[in-house]
Amino acid sequence: MVAATQSLEELCINSIRFLAVDAVEKAKSGHPGLPMGAAPMAYVLWDKFMRFNPKNPKWFNRDRFILSAGHGCMLQYALLYLTGYDSVTIEDIKQFRQWGSKTPGHPENFETEGVEVTTGPLGQGIANGVGLALAEAHLAATFNKPDATIVDHYTYVILGDGCNMEGVASEACSAAGHWGLGKLIALYDDNHISIDGSTDVAFTEDVSKRFEAYGWHVLHVENGNTDLDGIAKAIEEAKKVTDKPSMIKVTTTIGYGSPNKQNTAGVHGAALGPDEVALTRHNLGWDHEPFVVPQDVLSHMNKAIERGANYEEEWNKAFETYKAKYPAEAAEFERYLSGQLREGWEKELPTFTPDDAANATRKHSAAILNKLAPVIPELIGGSADLTHSNLTELKVSGDFQKGQYGNRNVHFGVREHGMGAICNGMALHGSGLIPYGATFLIFTDYMRASIRLSALSQAGVIWVMTHDSIGQGEDGPTHQPVEVLASLRAIPNLTVIRPADGNECSGAYKIAIEKAKQNAPTLMAFTRQNVPNLPGTSIEGVTKGAYTIVDCDGTPDIILIGTGSEVSLCVTAAEKLTAEGKKVRVVSMPSWELFEAQDEAYKESVLPKAVTKRVSVEAGVSFGWAKYVGTEGDTVSIDTFGASAPGATCMEKFGFSVDNVLAKAKAVLG
Amino acid sequence: MVAATQSLEELCINSIRFLAVDAVEKAKSGHPGLPMGAAPMAYVLWDKFMRFNPKNPKWFNRDRFILSAGHGCMLQYALLYLTGYDSVTIEDIKQFRQWGSKTPGHPENFETEGVEVTTGPLGQGIANGVGLALAEAHLAATFNKPDATIVDHYTYVILGDGCNMEGVASEACSAAGHWGLGKLIALYDDNHISIDGSTDVAFTEDVSKRFEAYGWHVLHVENGNTDLDGIAKAIEEAKKVTDKPSMIKVTTTIGYGSPNKQNTAGVHGAALGPDEVALTRHNLGWDHEPFVVPQDVLSHMNKAIERGANYEEEWNKAFETYKAKYPAEAAEFERYLSGQLREGWEKELPTFTPDDAANATRKHSAAILNKLAPVIPELIGGSADLTHSNLTELKVSGDFQKGQYGNRNVHFGVREHGMGAICNGMALHGSGLIPYGATFLIFTDYMRASIRLSALSQAGVIWVMTHDSIGQGEDGPTHQPVEVLASLRAIPNLTVIRPADGNECSGAYKIAIEKAKQNAPTLMAFTRQNVPNLPGTSIEGVTKGAYTIVDCDGTPDIILIGTGSEVSLCVTAAEKLTAEGKKVRVVSMPSWELFEAQDEAYKESVLPKAVTKRVSVEAGVSFGWAKYVGTEGDTVSIDTFGASAPGATCMEKFGFSVDNVLAKAKAVLG
Repeated sequence: MVAATQSLEELCINSIRFLAVDAVEKAKSGHPGLPMGAAPMAYVLWDKFMRFNPKNPKWFNRDRFILSAGHGCMLQYALLYLTGYDSVTIEDIKQFRQWGSKTPGHPENFETEGVEVTTGPLGQGIANGVGLALAEAHLAATFNKPDATIVDHYTYVILGDGCNMEGVASEACSAAGHWGLGKLIALYDDNHISIDGSTDVAFTEDVSKRFEAYGWHVLHVENGNTDLDGIAKAIEEAKKVTDKPSMIKVTTTIGYGSPNKQNTAGVHGAALGPDEVALTRHNLGWDHEPFVVPQDVLSHMNKAIERGANYEEEWNKAFETYKAKYPAEAAEFERYLSGQLREGWEKELPTFTPDDAANATRKHSAAILNKLAPVIPELIGGSADLTHSNLTELKVSGDFQKGQYGNRNVHFGVREHGMGAICNGMALHGSGLIPYGATFLIFTDYMRASIRLSALSQAGVIWVMTHDSIGQGEDGPTHQPVEVLASLRAIPNLTVIRPADGNECSGAYKIAIEKAKQNAPTLMAFTRQNVPNLPGTSIEGVTKGAYTIVDCDGTPDIILIGTGSEVSLCVTAAEKLTAEGKKVRVVSMPSWELFEAQDEAYKESVLPKAVTKRVSVEAGVSFGWAKYVGTEGDTVSIDTFGASAPGATCMEKFGFSVDNVLAKAKAVLG
Repeated sequence: MVAATQSLEELCINSIRFLAVDAVEKAKSGHPGLPMGAAPMAYVLWDKFMRFNPKNPKWFNRDRFILSAGHGCMLQYALLYLTGYDSVTIEDIKQFRQWGSKTPGHPENFETEGVEVTTGPLGQGIANGVGLALAEAHLAATFNKPDATIVDHYTYVILGDGCNMEGVASEACSAAGHWGLGKLIALYDDNHISIDGSTDVAFTEDVSKRFEAYGWHVLHVENGNTDLDGIAKAIEEAKKVTDKPSMIKVTTTIGYGSPNKQNTAGVHGAALGPDEVALTRHNLGWDHEPFVVPQDVLSHMNKAIERGANYEEEWNKAFETYKAKYPAEAAEFERYLSGQLREGWEKELPTFTPDDAANATRKHSAAILNKLAPVIPELIGGSADLTHSNLTELKVSGDFQKGQYGNRNVHFGVREHGMGAICNGMALHGSGLIPYGATFLIFTDYMRASIRLSALSQAGVIWVMTHDSIGQGEDGPTHQPVEVLASLRAIPNLTVIRPADGNECSGAYKIAIEKAKQNAPTLMAFTRQNVPNLPGTSIEGVTKGAYTIVDCDGTPDIILIGTGSEVSLCVTAAEKLTAEGKKVRVVSMPSWELFEAQDEAYKESVLPKAVTKRVSVEAGVSFGWAKYVGTEGDTVSIDTFGASAPGATCMEKFGFSVDNVLAKAKAVLG
């Protein structure tokens, strides 16, 4: 299978293979097949093409690399180790998939320097890659000058058959073709094997033709196992085509080198076992002990360190020249990279009094977005084909389109999941961009996997969701969220905010922008319908998650807790109860997560344990509310699907009326 | 735009258009654009090709029709009305989008006879269509004889640009091409407009080429506005190609006939307004009052009633012949259609004692599926490329593949969302099939929209989800559900069951099969890792949702409530607490929904209000548990993401240990 005397290149490639084989073998868990098959393309890419600095993994202008087939992560760890990153040592590789290691079972950007994005859930990585390439194109258009280029890198992705079956990848790749993101280069590890066996059992489409249909530049390396020149030529050719993303289909053999398991599903996701490891060593002429890499290989691969230092130095010089010529732009660029916001941005946030006209919170959102857009130029995003319903257009900018990459209004098309993953990619570009993605709240269901990944992988994305309840109206139950708020609140690290009025919308954006800069996502839920501006609401109140907006003297008889459009019902009901001599507090609770983050004293001050008579009012399921209303309280909620009718009718029929709040409150009061 | 004297065909088409225009106008809400543009293709399809019986909408062998672009539902209501269905009268059309009407804002199969599946969330309908076509192919292969055909219908879908942008459609259409489902015919309303305007802003791929890449037969009608012959010829041609699904791109003008709004996004999703309605009437030579259909049109379209009666009679005769020749098969076929299970099927469900070896609940699931497969031949399904992890293969059958449609193991590929929608389609074929779809529990996030639709549209699907907690182990946080159970429990009408051991797995399947026959979906969550068989567990216990498996004399000091793999921790902790003199009850709670469906007396008997000291133990988020542990209880839960490490290590490190349960219990006991 290999020459008796291996070339240095073969040694390098086999080093990658056996690091993967040995690490999986030691962990007794993992995926050796992909690293064994994709090692040649990965070697060529990292050794001959990728520009990165192992000693400064965050160097801005590095080429980005994503292993979208994240289960093959030993490939990436091997590359990081061999090219001299400090984040992955040989000891780390020996700890593959163990508690607290830097080498978890799928690549996690928050665990391992050099990993750009978290992958594993298939299709997300290539879609993140579209986001990285979009970010590069946008920053290049924003900052580069005819005589000075400071933003100029490629985004490389290795993806497999699994990624290519996923709809999220289809969506994002269709968008990438539309945008003509020429510096996105995907290497498709075409190994014809997925977990269920040959891809013949489920996946016989013509992938290349599909990518051509998307408007991609498509190449094929027929022998990805040994034709290193072919791989290199294809990458060169891909780099030359700058107006289309490139997909290089590289046909390989999964588990290459394993005499009995290569080209089978058996090598996809399980250790080879000691016997087969021995046979594979023999077959590939590899007589090194486990985890031992020949010094020649280390010396050669470590040249990446010097290359990387040179790349960075060269770029630093270019940036100094830029700075001299364009000091204002350079300062702004540095601000982007620093993650700092322009000072005073929050002064743009509007405030309201109850005398201000009622308005839909989605309209407040639109107004705020447009107040912020000029002072937060790093805000970039859009809607999944609901721009004029979500109201997310930034008037200060044009549309992000092919050749118009400096613009900030991104039309994602009816591709919610792709939008989610693209936004994650933009955030994880690490260049200060604040991406936002919008659709109807109900359609977070389409993109939930990417919302979860924003929370897991610390992507500072803002999710702008409108039409947040049955108040949506005529579109009916397919378009009316009832369980969605609960399902989103359940996601760790995601802050969900459902503002009640104008002030709370300002508060929501204050949090969302700040959290984005802390690499945490925020999801805001806005109404379609008008809601009044309420007494007592405030930006500061929102930051605490829940706060008293109407109060009584002394200990309340009852606390009404509302969110979003239902807070006004609480306020009116409280007036009536007060008129009847009851002592009533109204708590507006735009965000459970922000409230839970407060200290016990504050929580007690808002929801005193002694006051057990409580009613929550939210046009959503009761699920979860027991935590706040306790065993003696009750909820005004909807535990069924909604219905098609005008929004106000739906609200009334499902019990979101002052009368029903009063009735529930009185029942609780006993 | 039209001849002064309109042909009958033109009158029919304009009737469809104006029913849509007038209904949307009256409702002041809705989507007139698609019906106006797609009326010609819909007319040709329904008048010249579709075989259905308006007076028996559920006639088994009808051609199925799906309006995947569900927002254009007035098209479908107009067709149902004009062809003589009793479900939609002219009065119903006047009540378009109103409370309680039969004409909701998107087609709902459970509201309107003649609507096969609920559509509206884009892409789902075409993917459901793949499921309907799969069901037809499977039933045809199962029941048809060389000399007697009883299953033989087409599935027609009208979809739009929005559907074609959605990943779920990509996934399902790729699968349909793989399977060669030749009786699936999709008409793509290529109108170049979506909500954000021209599709040029986001969607410039070559859709036809993409479908060719999927292995579809692709046709194009260039003038879908007036070339009725062209439409008819294309459908004829599509019907002739029996080994590939067909996609007919029909280029149309959205809002055809509206002088100022056609071919704009303005006509997509809003009423035309009285002035433009008047102009459109003038432009199309339509002088009828709103909601008035010329008698000629009604007479002509109503011929569908006689045609339909004939089709059904013809089929009834064919079935009688079949019955005479093949009485056993005919009886079985009738049983399928009746929705009855074979008697005694539940006797196959195994039971266990604590002496039986520990086993993973996914392995129990596999054993039960294979016990049931021979006695429930209508069980058909598979996994999204995790067959050997989910363990969902039916040994009694082969793989469902092109030309092998009688087989019951479906390889969905790495297409979770497509799988979900295809399973919904199979269930809503209404022929007694019980479809199941499987993946890792975490990847319900990818298919949540279709799981929700199974619950909303009463699709009796079984969702088989394995690797149900951080016990999953080394794959790490991207593969470990923590918030997923909570997020699924929040969905109305979905029964979620997390069994603790072998008996509870049997109970879970008992419920799942029964619910499927009641047109309700069930989602089961199984472990990757071994769990012991516990004392006191039972099939009957599962059917109640929660029940006491270990008890004490008299009123318990504390109740430990566990689900799934954590129930055994509760049992062991209870033994230790009992040894220390505490009175302890252990409640196994495999299903919240089933418990909530019990009467108050039963609930009180399991979780007496007087016992306020309670600890829940579940390897998931605490979200929602306050309902059962109350204000004085506590949870053993994980409110962060998981980590990559062996499953047992993850469990231990995150506090799912007897020691930690004991510690929490003691703290609660005070």
